[in-house]
Amino acid sequence: MRRGKVLMERFESAVLTGNPARDPSVRTVPVYLPPSYESSPDRRYPVVFVLAGFTGRGRMLLNDNPWSPALDDRMDGLIAAGCDEMILVLPDCFTRFGGSQYLDSSATGRYETHLVEELVPWADARFRTLPGRDHRGIAGKSSGGYGALTLGMKHPDIFGAVACHSGDMYFDYCYRGDVPRFCAQIQQAGGLERWLERFESKRQKSHDDLLTLNVLGMAAAYSPDPGRPPFGIDLPCDLETGAFREDVWARWLSCDPLAMLDARVEALRSMRRLYFDCGVKDEFNLQHGARLLHRRLDALGVPHEYEEFDDGHMNISYRYDVSLPRLGKALAG
Amino acid sequence: MRRGKVLMERFESAVLTGNPARDPSVRTVPVYLPPSYESSPDRRYPVVFVLAGFTGRGRMLLNDNPWSPALDDRMDGLIAAGCDEMILVLPDCFTRFGGSQYLDSSATGRYETHLVEELVPWADARFRTLPGRDHRGIAGKSSGGYGALTLGMKHPDIFGAVACHSGDMYFDYCYRGDVPRFCAQIQQAGGLERWLERFESKRQKSHDDLLTLNVLGMAAAYSPDPGRPPFGIDLPCDLETGAFREDVWARWLSCDPLAMLDARVEALRSMRRLYFDCGVKDEFNLQHGARLLHRRLDALGVPHEYEEFDDGHMNISYRYDVSLPRLGKALAG
Amino acid sequence: MRRGKVLMERFESAVLTGNPARDPSVRTVPVYLPPSYESSPDRRYPVVFVLAGFTGRGRMLLNDNPWSPALDDRMDGLIAAGCDEMILVLPDCFTRFGGSQYLDSSATGRYETHLVEELVPWADARFRTLPGRDHRGIAGKSSGGYGALTLGMKHPDIFGAVACHSGDMYFDYCYRGDVPRFCAQIQQAGGLERWLERFESKRQKSHDDLLTLNVLGMAAAYSPDPGRPPFGIDLPCDLETGAFREDVWARWLSCDPLAMLDARVEALRSMRRLYFDCGVKDEFNLQHGARLLHRRLDALGVPHEYEEFDDGHMNISYRYDVSLPRLGKALAG
Amino acid sequence: MRRGKVLMERFESAVLTGNPARDPSVRTVPVYLPPSYESSPDRRYPVVFVLAGFTGRGRMLLNDNPWSPALDDRMDGLIAAGCDEMILVLPDCFTRFGGSQYLDSSATGRYETHLVEELVPWADARFRTLPGRDHRGIAGKSSGGYGALTLGMKHPDIFGAVACHSGDMYFDYCYRGDVPRFCAQIQQAGGLERWLERFESKRQKSHDDLLTLNVLGMAAAYSPDPGRPPFGIDLPCDLETGAFREDVWARWLSCDPLAMLDARVEALRSMRRLYFDCGVKDEFNLQHGARLLHRRLDALGVPHEYEEFDDGHMNISYRYDVSLPRLGKALAG
Repeated sequence: MRRGKVLMERFESAVLTGNPARDPSVRTVPVYLPPSYESSPDRRYPVVFVLAGFTGRGRMLLNDNPWSPALDDRMDGLIAAGCDEMILVLPDCFTRFGGSQYLDSSATGRYETHLVEELVPWADARFRTLPGRDHRGIAGKSSGGYGALTLGMKHPDIFGAVACHSGDMYFDYCYRGDVPRFCAQIQQAGGLERWLERFESKRQKSHDDLLTLNVLGMAAAYSPDPGRPPFGIDLPCDLETGAFREDVWARWLSCDPLAMLDARVEALRSMRRLYFDCGVKDEFNLQHGARLLHRRLDALGVPHEYEEFDDGHMNISYRYDVSLPRLGKALAG
Repeated sequence: MRRGKVLMERFESAVLTGNPARDPSVRTVPVYLPPSYESSPDRRYPVVFVLAGFTGRGRMLLNDNPWSPALDDRMDGLIAAGCDEMILVLPDCFTRFGGSQYLDSSATGRYETHLVEELVPWADARFRTLPGRDHRGIAGKSSGGYGALTLGMKHPDIFGAVACHSGDMYFDYCYRGDVPRFCAQIQQAGGLERWLERFESKRQKSHDDLLTLNVLGMAAAYSPDPGRPPFGIDLPCDLETGAFREDVWARWLSCDPLAMLDARVEALRSMRRLYFDCGVKDEFNLQHGARLLHRRLDALGVPHEYEEFDDGHMNISYRYDVSLPRLGKALAG
Repeated sequence: MRRGKVLMERFESAVLTGNPARDPSVRTVPVYLPPSYESSPDRRYPVVFVLAGFTGRGRMLLNDNPWSPALDDRMDGLIAAGCDEMILVLPDCFTRFGGSQYLDSSATGRYETHLVEELVPWADARFRTLPGRDHRGIAGKSSGGYGALTLGMKHPDIFGAVACHSGDMYFDYCYRGDVPRFCAQIQQAGGLERWLERFESKRQKSHDDLLTLNVLGMAAAYSPDPGRPPFGIDLPCDLETGAFREDVWARWLSCDPLAMLDARVEALRSMRRLYFDCGVKDEFNLQHGARLLHRRLDALGVPHEYEEFDDGHMNISYRYDVSLPRLGKALAG
Repeated sequence: MRRGKVLMERFESAVLTGNPARDPSVRTVPVYLPPSYESSPDRRYPVVFVLAGFTGRGRMLLNDNPWSPALDDRMDGLIAAGCDEMILVLPDCFTRFGGSQYLDSSATGRYETHLVEELVPWADARFRTLPGRDHRGIAGKSSGGYGALTLGMKHPDIFGAVACHSGDMYFDYCYRGDVPRFCAQIQQAGGLERWLERFESKRQKSHDDLLTLNVLGMAAAYSPDPGRPPFGIDLPCDLETGAFREDVWARWLSCDPLAMLDARVEALRSMRRLYFDCGVKDEFNLQHGARLLHRRLDALGVPHEYEEFDDGHMNISYRYDVSLPRLGKALAG
């Protein structure tokens, strides 16, 4: 099998310099170049930005696993089986809160801007990409699927195809149920700052730790509040009384793809390909949101492809076998 | 140690005859008579109705356990240690949906009426109780705590003291997060009827099975709808689209003790004793609701006793060691 | 349905008086009397001693459960469906180490003697039993199944039929794998005495707690050693080095029904009925032992009935629906 | 921070060509070159072979993780903090049975030979290593720790220092308890061949799946039997009767480091550094074996360093922070 090549690129981000969460502004951005890249020096390729899920970053998509190929090996295999050759760019938008949801937030930094205004032009300049949104796609799983779908909605001039696997949506079902436990965890730790310190110092993160980080990460993305100590984040609960905060929740909901949809219908309609799927046993209940999105798009007459598969939320990178060839076909020159 | 005696009374309920869920109208109602009951034939005793939690019934409170005494043994021990002697009545308000929340519902039956209008007078007639609400208390844990608290709110003429352990309240935190999974389970089974059939035929009930039954049981109690096949129950989700149903949820919320409070303040104020507690690690997040209730009662100037303990929701019958002596003192002649 | 009656008998045991583990010598022994017992004052009935599993005692067999009848209700139902009427005696052989395996041990007490020499004659004297081993059976599940099988082997003059559900056997598979963790738990606690103190004071027993108690309980039964402080028990591991102790293990193995078999073949051959079964997913791997026993009995030409069922080790009291009618038929007058 | 470099080397193994398990003979062997490697073209470095655990291979040691650095990043950090610069070679000895235990087996292939006779000379030829056993170490965790310790025992002429984290030893405690469940899993699947097929086709591997693979992998390593279909492996249980096979087990035990010790004392005594550790909560009970080894080495007067840490078996790559600097110091020129 002919193999592509992975470059571990070092990217110094101006946009992320001095970011409020004090995360690094220099990031490692792995880039997959397809098998013919070196031997065909005049050829240009479509490019797909692949976004990691929560607590992930690009390099993690290359992690080796005994029974599931890393993304580079997977791509080699797909290409060998007939998939169009593509460049894959694997951004790092990780933060100390576990992720950024790939959007601009006063609490974490301008990750959407970093991606769209820095990485996209950089990739075009540095690699032989086919220029233009018609040859540029975006894909991801979980929070990466959220990023792919919403960046497609917001930047149809930049991205011409979207693949979203088990993406965060219908926040009432995928996040809200975790708020009470989040609240208890933070209260027990004696506040956000102490909780985060402890979390960072723990060798083994428990299920409750990661659940709590997840809510915190979402709050950092969806309800930042520059005036609120210690982290400039409004929480969906009142730490003193424990009560749910409907006002903060309303801010979260405005970031829900289902809520964003009406204002972004034409963006999605313009996609050369819009693919999304979800497992019917998704532990975060995301299949409900995916079905609602599917139903809404049908009603709106927006072309798309929707699949369900018999699995949960974890260890489903094999779903890229379904989406990447479709993106390849849609974005090919 | 002097021991009391348990009678397993057979009660034929007129109120439950022909109940819509086709549950039995004849129930076994265990009654605990204190040690001196037989030897002091002229003495009268306070009476406490103790309500079992969801999936429970009175007899279950007598279940033996190697390291936690059954309620009769516990009561013997408390009395030996100085607690006032009391009669305990252990109603059976179980239904095929797992419970009744001790209220009248067109989907399950009139369990509140059964308790208040049948069992209370029956107990007074059949046993040497001290008559009157000042000598009659109500207690329970979990859904039984919900029952104790709300029956106290609704019938201050009947009950003069309340003890509520880890009671259902603040439904936004204790039930709502389970709706998405409930919805998926029912959808996967092919509808409510099929789900219930399968549930009943399964030897081993899984965690998801019991979570699903819990939501169904609450819907049977809080949002019955006589016209809705197959069971006359409105669900908090649309089984076709999967969407949350805010209209049904509003009906549930009206049964939340926190929502009922304003109209029932004087009932609670009239209690000779109002005790409630919750574990700080409650798996159903009930500590948040308990704190909100405590805060509200404080603001309203309603006397009450509130405790938190370092435990979760399960296997906490030792909390009766705290509440029963207080009820005894409040209700003694 | 005609119903039997349960008497909660108080039994003062001479044999258990001053037992080494300082457990009570007065025990509650529930006795089930069949529906016709009162109305047919001249009739005599077969009797079956039903033994609870580890951490259990007779009263626990009567525990109520929403979807699985207690043993008295189950017996009522079986009799209504045609099963012979029988008296059931439910002994209490619990100890502070979680159980006694129904044998005489210098560490716990003479539970075998208590059962065979005290309870059996008492039951014959106090109730209208059909006298003689041909009308007396013994049954149980898990450690109770072990007790039923081994007491049948050792006392064919007393018991004429045996039913063993998921009984402890093939100790290499059902106990040995737990020794390393047991050892670690005791070491971490700082010795047996401290471990037991902590265990007894914990409100919630963890999985590791119960695993540890199980090994301790078996050691108390199979390898007592009067000279060994603090409890007169030899352990299957060296608490100082952590090493497995083959010498102690050899003592355990001598109590394994598979090892006892050769010397007790004729006892088993004499049974009017020998029934045993096991779930194919038994969490303690007991199905392997059951199959080996079945194979050995076949080779020896000992009549028996063996069944496997598609379930694990817990919540399988429905298996009494299979065994009790067979015992009834075998023991009927 | 100055950074080293990782080369993903492609290694065509003559030794593994035509291996019996039909695993690839071409492997990716990542090699870490320290920061000064390129800028100091005349300098030579110690080399450490780092062995992955069961179900792992060298590349997996480089997997990215949000809160625990990959081995290359970890090494960069250690060197920045003063650790001697070293080359790290990360072999791939994975097989379809989950691993090879880094030994020669007629069932899997000659992985020990591959490592010692192929990779060692190749590394010396291809990279600027300091030649000789005094500058060559071997390290690993879990099955990799087993490999490091036993290869050190067997090849003191090749390796001059050993670091073993939570290594497999005292097989009575770390493997034997899993045999009954292994046996049941294979029986239920209808034999080894079917089990392996199903295993390989399952997207999600369950806990029982991995436990079963573990026993199979150990049997492939410790009790191969060329004449035994389908895989040339003797199992520690009889699949027909379910019984434990003491004869096969004796073969396993001969591969236990504790059993190998007596014949290899001088090899270990010759090490420039012998380091091992284990977590006190090791889920595979390996702390017991580690302590026994420590005790034996002490008794034999073999210099070594032994540590225990407060953790379990998983996610403990941070222990390399302890071992790698010690290896560096021991192996430096």
